[in-house]
Amino acid sequence: MERSKVKLEEHNGHYGRLRNYINGKWEDSESSQIREVINPATGEVIAEAPLSTPEEVKKTVEVAQAAFREWRETPPTRRARYFFELQRLMEENFEELSKTVVREVGKTLDEARGELRRSIEEVECACGIPSLMFGYLAEDIAPTIDLQAINEPLGVFCMVPAFNFPALVPLEYMPYAVACGNTYIVKPSTEVPITQVKIFELIDKIGLPPGVVNLVHGSRNVVNNLLENPDMKGLSFVGSSPVGKLLYEKAAKYGKRAQCAGGAKNHFVIMPDADLDMAVNAMLSSFFGCSGQRCLAGAVAVPVGDVYEPLKEKFVEAASKIKLGYGLDEGTQMGALVSKEHMQSVLGFIEKGIEEGAKLLLDGRNVHVDGYPHGAFVGPTIFDEVKPDMTIAQEEIFGPVASIIKADDFEEALELIEGSRFGHSALIFTSSGYWAREFRYRVPCGNIGINIGVAATQAFSTLGSYKESFYGDLHGRAESVKFFTDRKIVITRWF
Amino acid sequence: MERSKVKLEEHNGHYGRLRNYINGKWEDSESSQIREVINPATGEVIAEAPLSTPEEVKKTVEVAQAAFREWRETPPTRRARYFFELQRLMEENFEELSKTVVREVGKTLDEARGELRRSIEEVECACGIPSLMFGYLAEDIAPTIDLQAINEPLGVFCMVPAFNFPALVPLEYMPYAVACGNTYIVKPSTEVPITQVKIFELIDKIGLPPGVVNLVHGSRNVVNNLLENPDMKGLSFVGSSPVGKLLYEKAAKYGKRAQCAGGAKNHFVIMPDADLDMAVNAMLSSFFGCSGQRCLAGAVAVPVGDVYEPLKEKFVEAASKIKLGYGLDEGTQMGALVSKEHMQSVLGFIEKGIEEGAKLLLDGRNVHVDGYPHGAFVGPTIFDEVKPDMTIAQEEIFGPVASIIKADDFEEALELIEGSRFGHSALIFTSSGYWAREFRYRVPCGNIGINIGVAATQAFSTLGSYKESFYGDLHGRAESVKFFTDRKIVITRWF
Amino acid sequence: MERSKVKLEEHNGHYGRLRNYINGKWEDSESSQIREVINPATGEVIAEAPLSTPEEVKKTVEVAQAAFREWRETPPTRRARYFFELQRLMEENFEELSKTVVREVGKTLDEARGELRRSIEEVECACGIPSLMFGYLAEDIAPTIDLQAINEPLGVFCMVPAFNFPALVPLEYMPYAVACGNTYIVKPSTEVPITQVKIFELIDKIGLPPGVVNLVHGSRNVVNNLLENPDMKGLSFVGSSPVGKLLYEKAAKYGKRAQCAGGAKNHFVIMPDADLDMAVNAMLSSFFGCSGQRCLAGAVAVPVGDVYEPLKEKFVEAASKIKLGYGLDEGTQMGALVSKEHMQSVLGFIEKGIEEGAKLLLDGRNVHVDGYPHGAFVGPTIFDEVKPDMTIAQEEIFGPVASIIKADDFEEALELIEGSRFGHSALIFTSSGYWAREFRYRVPCGNIGINIGVAATQAFSTLGSYKESFYGDLHGRAESVKFFTDRKIVITRWF
Amino acid sequence: MERSKVKLEEHNGHYGRLRNYINGKWEDSESSQIREVINPATGEVIAEAPLSTPEEVKKTVEVAQAAFREWRETPPTRRARYFFELQRLMEENFEELSKTVVREVGKTLDEARGELRRSIEEVECACGIPSLMFGYLAEDIAPTIDLQAINEPLGVFCMVPAFNFPALVPLEYMPYAVACGNTYIVKPSTEVPITQVKIFELIDKIGLPPGVVNLVHGSRNVVNNLLENPDMKGLSFVGSSPVGKLLYEKAAKYGKRAQCAGGAKNHFVIMPDADLDMAVNAMLSSFFGCSGQRCLAGAVAVPVGDVYEPLKEKFVEAASKIKLGYGLDEGTQMGALVSKEHMQSVLGFIEKGIEEGAKLLLDGRNVHVDGYPHGAFVGPTIFDEVKPDMTIAQEEIFGPVASIIKADDFEEALELIEGSRFGHSALIFTSSGYWAREFRYRVPCGNIGINIGVAATQAFSTLGSYKESFYGDLHGRAESVKFFTDRKIVITRWF
Repeated sequence: MERSKVKLEEHNGHYGRLRNYINGKWEDSESSQIREVINPATGEVIAEAPLSTPEEVKKTVEVAQAAFREWRETPPTRRARYFFELQRLMEENFEELSKTVVREVGKTLDEARGELRRSIEEVECACGIPSLMFGYLAEDIAPTIDLQAINEPLGVFCMVPAFNFPALVPLEYMPYAVACGNTYIVKPSTEVPITQVKIFELIDKIGLPPGVVNLVHGSRNVVNNLLENPDMKGLSFVGSSPVGKLLYEKAAKYGKRAQCAGGAKNHFVIMPDADLDMAVNAMLSSFFGCSGQRCLAGAVAVPVGDVYEPLKEKFVEAASKIKLGYGLDEGTQMGALVSKEHMQSVLGFIEKGIEEGAKLLLDGRNVHVDGYPHGAFVGPTIFDEVKPDMTIAQEEIFGPVASIIKADDFEEALELIEGSRFGHSALIFTSSGYWAREFRYRVPCGNIGINIGVAATQAFSTLGSYKESFYGDLHGRAESVKFFTDRKIVITRWF
Repeated sequence: MERSKVKLEEHNGHYGRLRNYINGKWEDSESSQIREVINPATGEVIAEAPLSTPEEVKKTVEVAQAAFREWRETPPTRRARYFFELQRLMEENFEELSKTVVREVGKTLDEARGELRRSIEEVECACGIPSLMFGYLAEDIAPTIDLQAINEPLGVFCMVPAFNFPALVPLEYMPYAVACGNTYIVKPSTEVPITQVKIFELIDKIGLPPGVVNLVHGSRNVVNNLLENPDMKGLSFVGSSPVGKLLYEKAAKYGKRAQCAGGAKNHFVIMPDADLDMAVNAMLSSFFGCSGQRCLAGAVAVPVGDVYEPLKEKFVEAASKIKLGYGLDEGTQMGALVSKEHMQSVLGFIEKGIEEGAKLLLDGRNVHVDGYPHGAFVGPTIFDEVKPDMTIAQEEIFGPVASIIKADDFEEALELIEGSRFGHSALIFTSSGYWAREFRYRVPCGNIGINIGVAATQAFSTLGSYKESFYGDLHGRAESVKFFTDRKIVITRWF
Repeated sequence: MERSKVKLEEHNGHYGRLRNYINGKWEDSESSQIREVINPATGEVIAEAPLSTPEEVKKTVEVAQAAFREWRETPPTRRARYFFELQRLMEENFEELSKTVVREVGKTLDEARGELRRSIEEVECACGIPSLMFGYLAEDIAPTIDLQAINEPLGVFCMVPAFNFPALVPLEYMPYAVACGNTYIVKPSTEVPITQVKIFELIDKIGLPPGVVNLVHGSRNVVNNLLENPDMKGLSFVGSSPVGKLLYEKAAKYGKRAQCAGGAKNHFVIMPDADLDMAVNAMLSSFFGCSGQRCLAGAVAVPVGDVYEPLKEKFVEAASKIKLGYGLDEGTQMGALVSKEHMQSVLGFIEKGIEEGAKLLLDGRNVHVDGYPHGAFVGPTIFDEVKPDMTIAQEEIFGPVASIIKADDFEEALELIEGSRFGHSALIFTSSGYWAREFRYRVPCGNIGINIGVAATQAFSTLGSYKESFYGDLHGRAESVKFFTDRKIVITRWF
Repeated sequence: MERSKVKLEEHNGHYGRLRNYINGKWEDSESSQIREVINPATGEVIAEAPLSTPEEVKKTVEVAQAAFREWRETPPTRRARYFFELQRLMEENFEELSKTVVREVGKTLDEARGELRRSIEEVECACGIPSLMFGYLAEDIAPTIDLQAINEPLGVFCMVPAFNFPALVPLEYMPYAVACGNTYIVKPSTEVPITQVKIFELIDKIGLPPGVVNLVHGSRNVVNNLLENPDMKGLSFVGSSPVGKLLYEKAAKYGKRAQCAGGAKNHFVIMPDADLDMAVNAMLSSFFGCSGQRCLAGAVAVPVGDVYEPLKEKFVEAASKIKLGYGLDEGTQMGALVSKEHMQSVLGFIEKGIEEGAKLLLDGRNVHVDGYPHGAFVGPTIFDEVKPDMTIAQEEIFGPVASIIKADDFEEALELIEGSRFGHSALIFTSSGYWAREFRYRVPCGNIGINIGVAATQAFSTLGSYKESFYGDLHGRAESVKFFTDRKIVITRWF
C-alpha cells in the first residue's frame, strides 16, 4: 500500500458544489436540484449539495453490487488494512476535519475534536474485523458430521445519518459493514454533507477497489430509491423517531433489514447524596454540550428531595455564564444550532413551555453574539416547575433547553423515566451503590450513566436504545457485525 | 422443585375441545368459532380448536406483561432449572408425544420421534442460558470509568409456527425467550394444535409462575391482535414467504422486532464424483421424508454431467418402493400430507408440471393406501426434463414432488441456485474438497449440506436462511438470545 | 437411555470397605494399606478406604486411555446427555448425598445441602458443553484459504480434591473434562472419600462407556503414580498452597498441564458506612460457616475507623450464640471440624495467637457438645488486637478463628490485603459505590465480594485466585474447558 | 500523540555494541561478557551483544514492576493506540527491518519481508485489545446479586525467543501482554539480537511510559535471573523441546505461569489423488523455505502408494534447481543457515542419515556459493528409503534436509505421525474431502495443513502445538490474552 502523505486542503470559505463519490470517482450530479449548505454561525452559504437523481442512485447501487463479489473474497486482514490507513489519514487531518465540522454544524472546535476522536475510534475498532467476524464450529454434531457457522457479508448496505455528528454517525456503521466484506453507500445529511465529503477525500486515497464505498447526496427521494432497489440489503438510519419508524416499516415492506435510531428525552436524576459540584459540572456538558443537539444529552433534570433548591441555584448560575460564539473563535463555550429552521423549532418549544405554565429560570432567546448577527444562536435555557405532561417534558427539543422536575423520592424519579415514550439514555448522580444498581436495573433505557453526564459508549461495544428511540434488534458499532452479516450454516460429512 | 412423576394420558381417539393456557390455568375459550383438527391419514376429526377472541388475546398479553417483572428478576440459573424439569418430562413422555404428532400431522412414527428428539435438544440448549446470555464488560474505557453491556430481556414475545413440526417449531424459540427472562405466548398452528397442548400439559407441571408462558389458539385475527398490542415486543414466525413478509411489514408498522422464516426450494446437486448409492439414499430422505413437508427438504435434483442417467434410474427405482401408510402402523415409510386441502395443492402442482411439459417419471397421484381410503396421501413423484422456469422448478410445493434438472457442469448447477428467489438450503454430493468449498462459499443459501440430505442444524447454533426464505436479521435457536434481549449499556464512574 | 429410578441406599452406620471404580466396574483394591474414615462428630469409624497400588493406578490410566478414542468421537450433544441424567439422579438423591457429606466431613445438614445444590449446578453447566466448546473459524485468511480452530480433548486427566467439600470439588472439574471428550480419574480425599463413592454409584447408572470416568482411592503415592504416567495429560488439584506448588512443579517436570488451587487468608473489610447488622450477619456465615473450612471463608476482620467498637461488640455477641452440634441433629448451627488431627492444628493456632499477644475475645477451645464427647469440635473464636505480622494473621488456619485488625482508613485496610501472600478472596461491606470500585480494582485477589460474606461464584463462570493461592493460568468450572482441550488449528486450501 | 516521521538509519555494515533498553532509555550493559553477532552468509561480525549482569536484570524487573500500576490504569483504547503507532512505524521501516533480518539470520529478503508482514499483523491484532480483553457479566446470579469476571493484567512478563524469526517471535507475545496492561521484558536471542534492537528503536518513538517494555540482552543466566525474580509473573519461551521443558519446570518451581514452545518434526503426506505439481511446489517452500529453520517446516515427506515414484522424481528435480546465495543478493532462493555451529549440526545429521542406511538422493553438503566462502550454507538435501526409527526421521534437524518415507496407505502414514514424539504440524495433499477430514480429525498435531505447505496461522487466532512440541495450556498470539490476564470474579450486592 502506498503511503502518500495526503492532506486535506484547508478551506476557509466556500466548499463549492459537492460531488458524489461513485465507483471510486468523484462525479458531478446531473441533478438540477440543489440544497444550500449554510454555516449556522455566520449565515453564509458554504457549499451546495445536489439532490441526486434516481438514475444516479440506481447506478451507485449497481457499482456497489458489482464490486461486492471481489471485495468479499478479499481476506478480512487485508480489508482491515485499508482502515489502518484511513485511521492514519484521519489522524493527520484531524484539525482540518474538526474545523469542517464546526463550519457546517456550528458546534465548538473542542466538541468537534471530541467527535473526530470518537470517529477515529470507530475506524480503529473496525481494524479488528478479522476476529470480530469469526464464525464458530462444532465437530461431531453427529458421528463424523461437523457444523460450521460462517458470518457472511450480504452485499450492498446504506446509511442515512442525522445532522448532529457530521463525521461520526456514518462511521458508526460504514467501517464495520465494509470491513465485513459488504459494499456501501452513504447518503450524508443534506444539512451537513461537507465533512463526509472531506472524509471521502481521504477514503479516496486509501486505495479501496472502486465501488466498495460510495457517497450520494440527496434527500428523502434518494432514501426511497435506495430502499426500493432490489440489490439493497439493509438500511442504517439515525434521526428522529417518526422518520425512523417510517423507514423501518418501509424497509420491512421491501423485505430489507433495518436498524433505525430515533429520538431521545433523557432524564438526569440527582440524588441527595450526590456530589453536587460534580453533578452540576456534568449537567452543563450534558444539557448544553453541542447546544443540546445530541441523542445522549440530558433534557430533564430530576433533583430528588432536598437537593432541589441548591441544585437549581448552582445549575442556573453556572449555565448563565456559558459563553456563546462561533465555534472556531477562541473562548467559545457553546456554538450555534445547526440552522435557522432548527432554531425556530427550539424557540417554539420555549414559547410552548411558557404557555403551558413552566417557570423560565434562564432564557436563551434573543441572545446577542458579537460579530455573528445572522447566527442560529439560542442560549442555555432552564425551565423550573415543569410538569411531566407538559410538551417540553415529553417532546425531544434537541436544543439547549433544560426542564427541571422535582421528585420527592427515587421511585418518583423512576416513574418519570418509565413514563417517557423514549428509552435512549438515563443518568443518575449518587454516591450510593444501592441507588446505582436500582437505577441501572430498573430504568428502561439503553444507555445508563452512573455519575456520568453523557453515557458515551465505546466503538468496541455498541449504543443501546429502547422503546421509541430505536426500531430494530441490532445496534451499531461492533454489534453491527451481526447486522452486516448473516450466518451460513454448513453441515459436512465425508465418506 | 417437586418432582412428581407426571405422565400424559394416552389418547387413542379424540382429544376434545382444546383449551387455552393462560396465566397458569387451562381455560375454555368463549369463542363460538372453532376449527376442526383432522387426522390426515384417517380423515377423522380428532379435536376442535377455538379461534380465540380479541379479549382473550388482550388478557393473555396482560397476564404475560404482569408476570414479566418478577420473572425477569428470577436468577437465570433458576429459570434454567425449569427447563431441566421440562426436559425430564419430555423424555418420560417421549412416545406419547411422538404419537400425538403422528395423529395430527400424518408423518411416520420414526419421523415424529426424530422431531421429538430435536425438540428436547432445544430445551436442553436453553438450559445453558446462564452463559448464553452473559453480557460483557470493559474496565477503564476512560480513567476510572467502566462499561457494562447487559443482555436484558424485554417483556412479552409471541410465536406463530408452521404446521409441519407441531412439537418442534415453537420450541426453537420459546425456551430461549423464556429462559432469557421474557414471558411468552404461543399461538399454535390451527391445523396441528394438539401436540402443543400436550407439551403445555407438561409445562403446567414444572411450576413456572403463572403468566410466564401461555398458549392461545386461533388464526390470523389472533396474530393481528398480538401484533397490535402495545405490550408485545416481538414476533417469531415460521410459515410461507408471502405471509412471512406480510407479518414482517406489519410488525415493523407497529415498531416491533420480527424474525419471519418463509418458504424454500432447495437444490440437491450430485457431482459426477459423488458416491451414488449414498446420494440416492440421502435423496430419498431429503425429498420424501415427512412427505416433503420440510423447509430443509430437497426439491430440485441437479445431477451434473454423466451422473444424470444412472442417478435418475436409481432414484426412481428406490422412490417407487417407498411404502405409504398410516404413520402409526408398522412398516410405514411415508405418511399422509397434513390435510386434504394441502393434498389438492400438491396435486395441482403435479398437474401444472405435466401441463408445462415436464416428464413424469414417477406418479404419486391416485395412490391407494389399504385401510385409509380418506387419507391425504400423495406418493413419491418425480419429474424429469424440468426447465428452470417451470412452475414446479420455481415454487415451493411442500410435498413429495421431485424435479430433475440436468446441469452440464458445476457452474450451471450454481446458476440454478442463484436464480431461485429462495435461499434456505442447498445440498451437494461430491467427494471433492474443492467442489465442496466452492459450493459452500458461493451458494447464497443459509444452510449448506455437504454429502448430507438434510442440513439439519443444532439447537446450539441456529438455522440459517437467505433471500425470500427469511425476513429479519437474527434467526432462532441459540442465536435468538440476541433477539430476545437488548443490550443495556452502563457507564459508571465513582468519586 | 434407560431411566431406571435408581436411589442410593440409606446408610446410617458403616459404609464398609470402599471400592475403586475402574472401567465401569466396582473393584476391591488389592492393597493391604487402608485409611479409616471417621465421622468427626461421633468419632466412629464409618468406612475404610484403600491406598491403591501402583498397578491399580496404572491399570486405571490404561482403561481411561483406551476409552478415550471412542468417547471423543461421541457427539458432544450425546456426551452432554449423560450429565442431564446425572443431574436428575443427583436431584433424586439430594437428601441422602447431603447426609453422607455431613457424616464424613462434619458440617451441618444445611451446609451440606448448599454444597449439593452447587454440585448439581456444576453438572448442569457441563450440560451446555456443545456450545461451551465451540471452536471458531475464519474464511479467506488468504484468498481461498480458510482457518478453523477446534477445541479438541486431549486424553486422560485426573483430579485430586481437598477434603472440605466432599461432593463439590471433583465436580468443579470432572464434568467439564468428560463432557469435552476426555476420560477421567478422581482420587478422592482419603479423609472424606465416601460421598464421591456415592456419586459414582449414580454415575454407574447413567450408562457411560467403561473407562470414561474412574475412581481410585489412595494418598500421595497414587498422585505420584498418576503424574508419572506418560498417558496422563493434566492434573487439577485443590488443597494447601505448599502441596499445590509441589504438584505444580512435579506436573511440569513430567511436561503435564496443571491447575493447582491452594490456601487462602481472606480479609473482610467493614467500612464506616456499612450496614452493620448486615455485615455482622454476613461475618457469621463467612468466618464460621463450615467451621471456617472453606477457601472463601473470612479470616481477618478489618473494621475501618469508628466502626471498630460497635462491630466488635456485635460480632462477639452474635458469634457467642452459635450452637455447635452434630450436623444431622436439628438446630445445629456449626458442626465439627473434619478430624481430630485438624482440630489439634486449629487449637495450636489459637495457642500461638495467645502467645504472640493477641487478645482472645471469644474462646472456642474446650467446647462441650452434649452427646458427642469424641467430636472434633472447636467453637467460634475471635481474637482482637491482632497485628499483621502475627502467625494468626498470616497463616491459613482453616478453622473458626477470626482475627480482628483495626484499620484507620481504607488505604490501611488495602495494605493489609496487599501484604498477604495469598490472593484468594477479599470482601468489603460499604454502601459507597466509590469504595466498592476502589476495592474491586485494587485488591489483588481472585474473588471479590461487595457486601457479600462469601464470594461464591457460579459454575458458569469460574473461581478466581491470585498469588500463592493458585498455581496455573486457567481455573476450574466453565473456564476449565480451555484447560481440558487444546486448540487444533486447521488451514485449508482446495484446488 | 506526536507523529514524528521517524525512520531507522540504514545500516550497511556493523551495528556496534548493542545496548539494553531499560525504563525508556538505551543503556550500555556493564557486563564484560559479550557475544559476537555474525552475518552467517558473509561470516563477518556485525555486532556485539552483552550478556547482562544479574543487577541489570534485577533493575529491569524493578522498573517494569514500577511502571505496572499506572500502565494498567491507562484505558485499553489508549494502550492500543501505541500499537497503531508502532504499526505505522513498522510499515515505514519495512525494508530496512527486512534487511536487518537477512543480515543476522541469513534468510532471503523475500522471506524476511514475509516475516515482517506477519510481525506487523501481530501488532495490528493487538490493536484490537479493547474487545479481545472484554470480561463477562451475569446479573442476578441470586436475587439482586450480580457477577462480573474481569480480565485483569498481572504485572511483569518476559519473553525468550528462538533465533529463526528475529522480528516475529517476540511480537507474537509482547504486544498482547502489553496491550493487556502488563509490562514486559524481551531477552532477544543472542544469535540474532539486532532486529529486536531496531524494533525497539521504533518502540522508543511511540511514547510508551518508561518501563512498560524493556529489552535485556543475555543468555541462560539472564533467563534464570528473570524467572527467579519474585515480581516476574510468567514466561513465554520459543526454542527447542529440551530447553522448553526445562524452563517449564523451572518456571513452575518458582510458581510462575509458563508457555514453552519446543521443536517439531512435521510430516508432509501426499495422497495419490493429490495435484502433484501443486504438492511439489508446496514442498519446496515447506522443506527448504528459511533453509528449513522453521517450526512449521516440512521434515518428512510421506508419499502414499503409487505417488511415490513420480513425486520423488519431481521433488528432487525441483529441489536441485534452488539457487543458494546471500539473502540480500537478487535471485537468491535459499539463504544461509543461522551459524557455522548450526551448519555443523545439520551436516552431522546428514552424516548420520548416510550411516544409518538412508539413500541420499540430493546432497546439500559442500555447496559452493560464489563470493561467500565463509557462509554457513547447506543446500537442499533429500534422503530416500528412510526408516521411521532412523535418527533423521525422529530428530528435529532444523535445516534443509528432507526424509522420504513411503507409506502403503493412509493408515500407515497416520501411524508415522502418531509415532512421533512431536506434535507441532502435519500436512496433507489430497483432493478428497474424506481424507482431509480424517487427517484433520485424527492427527495429533496442533497445526494441520490441507493442501498447504506451511500451516501458517493468523495473529487473530493462535499457533497450535501438541505433545513434546509445547509445554503449557495457552498458546501465543490472540489466545495469549488469557495467559496475560487472570480472571477477577466480583460478586456484588447492595442494600
